[in-house]
Order: sequence, then C-alpha cells, then structure tokens
Amino acid sequence: MTQPSNRRVVLARIPTGTPEPEDFALVDEPRRTPGAGELLLRTIWLSMDPYQRNWMAGARSYGTAAAPGATVIGRAVSEVVLSNDPGFVAGDIVCGETGWQTSPVVSADVVEAVDASLAPISTALGVLGSPGLTAWVGMLDAGKPARGETVVVSAAAGAVGSVAGQIARIMGARVVGVAGDPAKCRHVVEELRFDACVSHRGPDVDAALARECPDGVDVYFDNTGGPVTDAVYRRLSRDARIALCGLVAEYGADDARGHDLRPLLACQATLTAFSVRRHLRRMPDWRRQASSWMREGALVYREDVLQGIERAPGAFTRMLAGRTLGKALVQVAEAPSRL
Amino acid sequence: MTQPSNRRVVLARIPTGTPEPEDFALVDEPRRTPGAGELLLRTIWLSMDPYQRNWMAGARSYGTAAAPGATVIGRAVSEVVLSNDPGFVAGDIVCGETGWQTSPVVSADVVEAVDASLAPISTALGVLGSPGLTAWVGMLDAGKPARGETVVVSAAAGAVGSVAGQIARIMGARVVGVAGDPAKCRHVVEELRFDACVSHRGPDVDAALARECPDGVDVYFDNTGGPVTDAVYRRLSRDARIALCGLVAEYGADDARGHDLRPLLACQATLTAFSVRRHLRRMPDWRRQASSWMREGALVYREDVLQGIERAPGAFTRMLAGRTLGKALVQVAEAPSRL
Repeated sequence: MTQPSNRRVVLARIPTGTPEPEDFALVDEPRRTPGAGELLLRTIWLSMDPYQRNWMAGARSYGTAAAPGATVIGRAVSEVVLSNDPGFVAGDIVCGETGWQTSPVVSADVVEAVDASLAPISTALGVLGSPGLTAWVGMLDAGKPARGETVVVSAAAGAVGSVAGQIARIMGARVVGVAGDPAKCRHVVEELRFDACVSHRGPDVDAALARECPDGVDVYFDNTGGPVTDAVYRRLSRDARIALCGLVAEYGADDARGHDLRPLLACQATLTAFSVRRHLRRMPDWRRQASSWMREGALVYREDVLQGIERAPGAFTRMLAGRTLGKALVQVAEAPSRL
Repeated sequence: MTQPSNRRVVLARIPTGTPEPEDFALVDEPRRTPGAGELLLRTIWLSMDPYQRNWMAGARSYGTAAAPGATVIGRAVSEVVLSNDPGFVAGDIVCGETGWQTSPVVSADVVEAVDASLAPISTALGVLGSPGLTAWVGMLDAGKPARGETVVVSAAAGAVGSVAGQIARIMGARVVGVAGDPAKCRHVVEELRFDACVSHRGPDVDAALARECPDGVDVYFDNTGGPVTDAVYRRLSRDARIALCGLVAEYGADDARGHDLRPLLACQATLTAFSVRRHLRRMPDWRRQASSWMREGALVYREDVLQGIERAPGAFTRMLAGRTLGKALVQVAEAPSRL
C-alpha cells in the first residue's frame, strides 16, 4: 500500500506580468499526520481570486511570502478527514486559507465551519464568502447608491462585480455593467438583471457609457482599473462615489499607466479604497442577507469550474485575463455524497 | 477733462499650456455709470488663483465663458466709489468676483463687505478669504488629522498650502511641506513652523519624503498633483486620507500623465476631492477661527505682490509656475489712507 500523499501547487518562480504555466510546479509529498489542535483536510473546492496575484507580486500582508517552492496561497472548501481539535469532527465541511494542496494539515483556527444547509458548499468561496461580502461592504459603505442613481460596475460578470451590481439593483439604482465580451454582457443583463452592460472590448467605450449613463455616473464600483476606469471617470456626476475594490487589469504590471484625477476634482468625487479583510466580522450579517435574497430570487450567481488541482494555474490565469464567467473555481475532489 | 476710463485685462486668445503674455490684452474703455442696484468700484487688490487657469481651459462653472475679448475672471478687493444700492455707501471696502479691471460696475449682490478692522483688507483674498477657507474645509473634513499623525502638504508656501499646514500643526500633527526651492522651504519651516519641508526640485524626492515621514503619511493635502503626488502615494499609511484640493501642475495639460492608484488600494486610502464653493456658508466661522489664531500668533501669512493691473498676466503666470511665495496679489490702486 502506498503512503497517502499531499499534492501541492508551488511557485516555480515569481511571475512577471501574466502568470504562465512555467511559473508553477506540482509537488507530491507524504501526507503529514495532524498534531494537537490540527486538522487533516481533503480539499474539495479551490478559489481563484485576484488577491493571489498581489501575493505573487510580493505583497506582504498575506502571511507566508511568495518565493520559489512556496505553496500558492488560496481559500478552499474542504472536508475534515481527521480532527485533533475539539471544535471539529471528521466529515465537517470547512472553509479557510489552506492553499493549493489536496490534503493539507492545518491549525484548526485557520478554518471555519461551512453550513452546508444554506446553499451548495462552493458558495462559501463566492456569493456567501469573501467575494460576496466584498461586494456588500463596498457598495454599502463606499458606493452608497440612492434610488434612481446610476451605478457602474466593472468586471460585472465576475465573483464580486456580479454581486455588487445585483445589490445596487436591489437598492433601486440603475445598474450598468462593464464586461469583456458579448456572452458576458448577455449574462449580466439577462441573468443578473443589470439595466445594461457595456463591452470594454467594444469599439468606443466612451460612447457606449455615454449612451447607457445619460445622466452621468453617481457610483463606480471598480474591480479592474485600466482604460475602463478612465472612461468612467470622464462620465462621473457631481459628488460621485468610487468604491475602489481592485485594479486587476494593473496587477503585476511594472508600470501602471495611471489615472487622470482631474475629473474627480471637477465633480468633487470621493474615492474609497477598501479591503474586505477589515470587515470579516460582518460575514454573518451578509450571509443572512444574501441567503434571504437568494431565496427570493433577487440574487443569483454563476460558477466557472475546472476539474483537478493540476489545472489551478490555468484557471487562475483565465480568471486574471477575464476569460471566466462568474466565480472561478477548481474542483479538486468530489463533495461527500450526503451533501 | 478726459472721460474717466475702465482698464480691463482680456483674453487675446485661449492659452494652451502655460499662459503667455500674448494670451492677454489691455483694453481701455469709458467707465459705465452704475444703474439701480449697481456699484461703481475702484479695484485695489487683484487675487491670483489657480481656478482661473481652469476657466481659461473652458471649465463651465464660473459664469462667463472664456473667449477672446472676455475680461479675465478673478476675485478682488475694492472700494465703493458710487453706490446705487441701499446695502453699500461710497468708501465701503468690498470683495467679490469682479474680474481684472480697474473700475468695474457690478451688481451689488456679487460683492460682500470686508471688515477692515479684522486685518489688512488684502487678507480677504487670502488667509481670511477663499484660500483660507479652502485649507480649513479640506483639512478638517477630508484630512481629519489626529494628534501625532503625519500630514504632507504640497505647494506648502502657497496661499492654501501655507494655511492648511498651519491648521494641521495647530491640531497637533507632524507637518511636512513640499515646496519648490530652498527659500520657500526655509519660509515654510521658519515662519510657518512646519516640522520639515521637502523640495520637489531636489535630487530624490522619494528619499527626502522617506526621511521626513519615517512612519508613513497619514494625511496628504494635495494642491499640485504631478510627480510629487506619486511620491507621496508611495508613502501612504494604512487608512490614509487624501484631501484633493488642486492639481495645478496638471492644469492646462492636454494629457496628464495620471496617477498609479495601486498604493491607495494597498493601504485602503480615502481620497476626497472638494471645492470650497460648496462651503462658502462656513466663511464666517472660518474668519472667526482664523482671526483668533492670528491674534495668538499661531497662524501667519505672507503675500507676494506686484504693482499695476498691466502686470496681472505676469503675476498669474508666476503663481502657476510656483515662483511666488505666499498669496499672489496684484495691487491696482492704493488703499484709502484712513485704513
């Protein structure tokens, strides 16, 4: 009988620009036995999120530093196989920052229990997890849309943008998405029920925004940065609010082109850059609110799934390039059949 | 006896980039007689302010449009020569948006009385006027410095920056100015009593900022934009606040280079662009506060004066180029000898 193993995806080198397959490597190693207060997990779902690119670029605030040989950080939903902690038993479903590996042994305090009765367990990484909370915190605290105002959301088909726009719609705003291609734009309008969606790959983004936002833009929920952001800035209304959630189009760039701030000055705009990690204590409130909206059909979600941990690097690159629709996930193992 | 005349400075053409002497012309015309509700004024002080450059660039929010032949807009302190309005009598000192002209006839409702007992009447254009109020509103509402925090002010020797930094110092912050040359930096430290001042023409602005702001920058009061702004952004502390007051280094530029917003995201900064014109009702409060600080010696000011209306274009260009120290003014006539 072979020794049970843990398969990890590690950085082979620090990516420059868009990560490539050669930046990653698979490592098989013997599975560790959990010590006191530790859990052995079986990873089911891996989450693909833009902040992982920041970690690879050397951002210091994510625990372990990015270096060749380091396991790629990332959130996952897993099943507890062995528990040496009184808070968990085998069979529990948990979620936490456990990295790109199939059988991690982790301290029990890095995971939290997932309530599998609320929704499919993968949603703990999406609409009922950090991306959903990010959308809620950013739209409520920084965007503050009033009924009838115009809200623009970039990366509108993504895990955060899709929720942010739906929240603004529920709050009574006119919501205009920006997404990469016609299929995404159709999804945003038909399934997410935004009022309109503009393709940023279209011939004239300025003209399309002007058409869809005839009274200007009161709130801009920005996930991407890049030229879309400049186009939206030029359409801002007086007292506009910008919720700066991400600049995924600029991550890893040595020299971001930068944004002209003169339109912000002209309309006395407020820009609030925020991080969901400051607001995690609000997760229970968000889950309650989101579950209620999901039951009513007001809030829907889409997932973009690849199978197998070896496909995580490719799934990650697809997500960064905007080629995914909805929450980008990699399924590493089957969920327990009882779920 | 010759007909009394009004001398005006008009736009000869719309400036591109830095205004040049050829962009302006002097016009002499017969003085108008005031009608009902109008005043004939004798202009004493003209105010040189960056917003005038925006007007020349076509900004729509300043009343008359910029066009060849249009009198240059601008605030002035004047003496009432003839009043056809019950609110004023000859000899009153008034302040208002009366333009670059020696003997304007204006509606009484565009000016307000200046209390000449408070301070020299020219201060109605500087520390006790819009620039002072701008500094107060921006520092209090957007900057919100706490005791012991580090505040950076660009254009620290200018009309707004000099007041903004002194307010932050009075509020107990460590205040670091950015100014153009050693003479200004000396003025900022020795007379305005900032804790330090960095020359943006120095060899390594990043290193100088790092040295003077070892704990990062909690508040940035930005009057200029340009490369200074990028250098300060790179030093921002967590939860930093940016009061965006002006981008004078970028006015008139066809294509501003733009600012990398990634540092704002990394520290969850808030940027608030503001305009004093939304807060003019707070002027009496500011005058009361500022007069009190001035009596205590906590708040001082400096003026940079040229003589003669024909020198207004040159004074304006000097101010835009950062070659003035303190509030830039043109004295058009003597103040009444009784003052």
